[in-house]
Amino acid sequence: MRFHTRKWVKPEDLNANGTLFGGKLLAWIDEEAALYSVVQLENSKVVTKYMSEINFMSAAKQGDVIEIGIDVVKFGKTSLVLKSEVRNMMTRETIITIDNITMVNLGPDGVPASHGKTQIEYVKDRLDNK
Amino acid sequence: MRFHTRKWVKPEDLNANGTLFGGKLLAWIDEEAALYSVVQLENSKVVTKYMSEINFMSAAKQGDVIEIGIDVVKFGKTSLVLKSEVRNMMTRETIITIDNITMVNLGPDGVPASHGKTQIEYVKDRLDNK
Amino acid sequence: MRFHTRKWVKPEDLNANGTLFGGKLLAWIDEEAALYSVVQLENSKVVTKYMSEINFMSAAKQGDVIEIGIDVVKFGKTSLVLKSEVRNMMTRETIITIDNITMVNLGPDGVPASHGKTQIEYVKDRLDNK
Amino acid sequence: MRFHTRKWVKPEDLNANGTLFGGKLLAWIDEEAALYSVVQLENSKVVTKYMSEINFMSAAKQGDVIEIGIDVVKFGKTSLVLKSEVRNMMTRETIITIDNITMVNLGPDGVPASHGKTQIEYVKDRLDNK
Amino acid sequence: MRFHTRKWVKPEDLNANGTLFGGKLLAWIDEEAALYSVVQLENSKVVTKYMSEINFMSAAKQGDVIEIGIDVVKFGKTSLVLKSEVRNMMTRETIITIDNITMVNLGPDGVPASHGKTQIEYVKDRLDNK
Amino acid sequence: MRFHTRKWVKPEDLNANGTLFGGKLLAWIDEEAALYSVVQLENSKVVTKYMSEINFMSAAKQGDVIEIGIDVVKFGKTSLVLKSEVRNMMTRETIITIDNITMVNLGPDGVPASHGKTQIEYVKDRLDNK
Repeated sequence: MRFHTRKWVKPEDLNANGTLFGGKLLAWIDEEAALYSVVQLENSKVVTKYMSEINFMSAAKQGDVIEIGIDVVKFGKTSLVLKSEVRNMMTRETIITIDNITMVNLGPDGVPASHGKTQIEYVKDRLDNK
Repeated sequence: MRFHTRKWVKPEDLNANGTLFGGKLLAWIDEEAALYSVVQLENSKVVTKYMSEINFMSAAKQGDVIEIGIDVVKFGKTSLVLKSEVRNMMTRETIITIDNITMVNLGPDGVPASHGKTQIEYVKDRLDNK
Repeated sequence: MRFHTRKWVKPEDLNANGTLFGGKLLAWIDEEAALYSVVQLENSKVVTKYMSEINFMSAAKQGDVIEIGIDVVKFGKTSLVLKSEVRNMMTRETIITIDNITMVNLGPDGVPASHGKTQIEYVKDRLDNK
Repeated sequence: MRFHTRKWVKPEDLNANGTLFGGKLLAWIDEEAALYSVVQLENSKVVTKYMSEINFMSAAKQGDVIEIGIDVVKFGKTSLVLKSEVRNMMTRETIITIDNITMVNLGPDGVPASHGKTQIEYVKDRLDNK
Repeated sequence: MRFHTRKWVKPEDLNANGTLFGGKLLAWIDEEAALYSVVQLENSKVVTKYMSEINFMSAAKQGDVIEIGIDVVKFGKTSLVLKSEVRNMMTRETIITIDNITMVNLGPDGVPASHGKTQIEYVKDRLDNK
Repeated sequence: MRFHTRKWVKPEDLNANGTLFGGKLLAWIDEEAALYSVVQLENSKVVTKYMSEINFMSAAKQGDVIEIGIDVVKFGKTSLVLKSEVRNMMTRETIITIDNITMVNLGPDGVPASHGKTQIEYVKDRLDNK
């Protein structure tokens, strides 16, 4: 899995117990899945349709640096299935895993539309081929 | 299911498509599950341990009023299992459902601790019995 | 008074003294009054016009669960007058009360417009009558 | 009245109608009253106790620049009474006025404490006299 | 230099070390430069083009009151060059200085446009001359 | 330069003109520089001391995906000098560059302290060597 986006856990990210608020973590993962899909599908109208079960395996605390990993599970016709892992960057300890995040590609009318993609593409290659 | 907390969807809650950002919605549900548990278990050290699969059934848009419902599935020894539904308050259309949100009761040392509760209690009754 | 929306006081809600920031509390009440009016008046263009005096009766601290109550004082021609109380959910101690929050119903042109409502309606009844 | 703090109305400050959210405006005023008191009373433990009635006289929209004015009404023994006006900086049109915002000076124990001040002091003069 | 906007450093403004987050401070300065330009150039389409080197001279902590100063360095044809200093309001200790913040005036098409201004104007004078 | 953290530009990130708010972008870069330093120096008490001049080369708009790159310029005794570039992820167009961001390593007492590092280390290697 490739880990890209990193977050520094700040006071505004904490729950009332002083550890990283789970809801904030889910929001970060959802944003990462969305932007990954926007880039792969070359379409900015992409929405989250489904997430499989979520295990909160360890906590993070103020000052920790975490990183969010995303990988493709498969390309559907109008969908893109991803998986995600979030881990503590210093210890590599897993914080959360989600095996299936299904994103749906929308057309200009907001209805699911075929995206025509079948494999991961790198922006670099796209630009080189222009 | 009892619906309590309500949200008015404002520009700061939108994704880049202009609909309610899924990550914000998950953060709201997680907060509601946490505060429900804090009240039921009479302990403010409660953390989210697990969420079962999540279906995003319909979208919400700016200006919509949504409400978040929580119900108890069962009381474990150190855990409390909840379920949640979020719906559009005007149309009662379901936006999202989660069948199992497992919250864990922590002791002062941050380790799971028995909470001693076996059924839903109402704050009113607790206060009346004092 | 009916209490619906609940909030878990988190670090991002605190003032520089470490207690719940009064301004955040006023923002929560204003949102609750607005969404209550949107639902009652079946119009999303509703604005706050007036609030009567506000007493901050007790403080809330990190980890507290609070609930926000709203009741109708009266239906005007273009306005809806509400009152609000916020209390600590565990102790039922009152945190703040406001006796008169006047919301105004706007037409599509942004000018006050008659809303045609004279009493509280429940969404359930509206939907049953369809 | 002296106007200091200025705000540029951005999308994150809007309500669901696309105008400045009244709750955000109240939060800005409360912060301004608090920091004004912290400076005058030379004590960072200051809380809002009371606000008199609030008139929302005109709306602000995205891109507007507003300014927040504060003036002292009187010095009490443990309190400081302020008034506030918020206006559009380009047109000088009044957006909101509050005639009485009562701030209370707290001691280290969190209980109201005499602040010993009887008039407005300027930081410049305090520093010159050192 | 004239100091206007004031901020009360709250938990949401802190970095993971518990001092004022430098990024938040830069965001506050950029907003102040933008709104100052909007008022001077009488145009709400103004963007930041350049900032000269930034020295973080001292830290601020939770509960501090800081104030942000802005001054004009010069009026260009389509630009406005500002400088800024942020200081602790109680001690007048400098927190940060920036010698050159270049703002650019945009036309309705988003392209730099001549603003026709050559000196600082006060809103009061503009209104008096109407 | 290695690009890691990615952001999806949402309505809450926009200035009053509807483009990415420059201050938000600076806050994102400062966070990235801080967390990069925390990981390299294996110390969570790290602060920003200096940023060299900043050029805003192109704008970003709602729905864009941007990525933030960081590289080491040199290791000082108590400092770490970084440079940063932010670019649009789809077009690789540069949005902003900063040639020198000087971070300082602090000891437990908050005073600059020698960090003992002289080159980039990868967390993977550190963990392998344990």
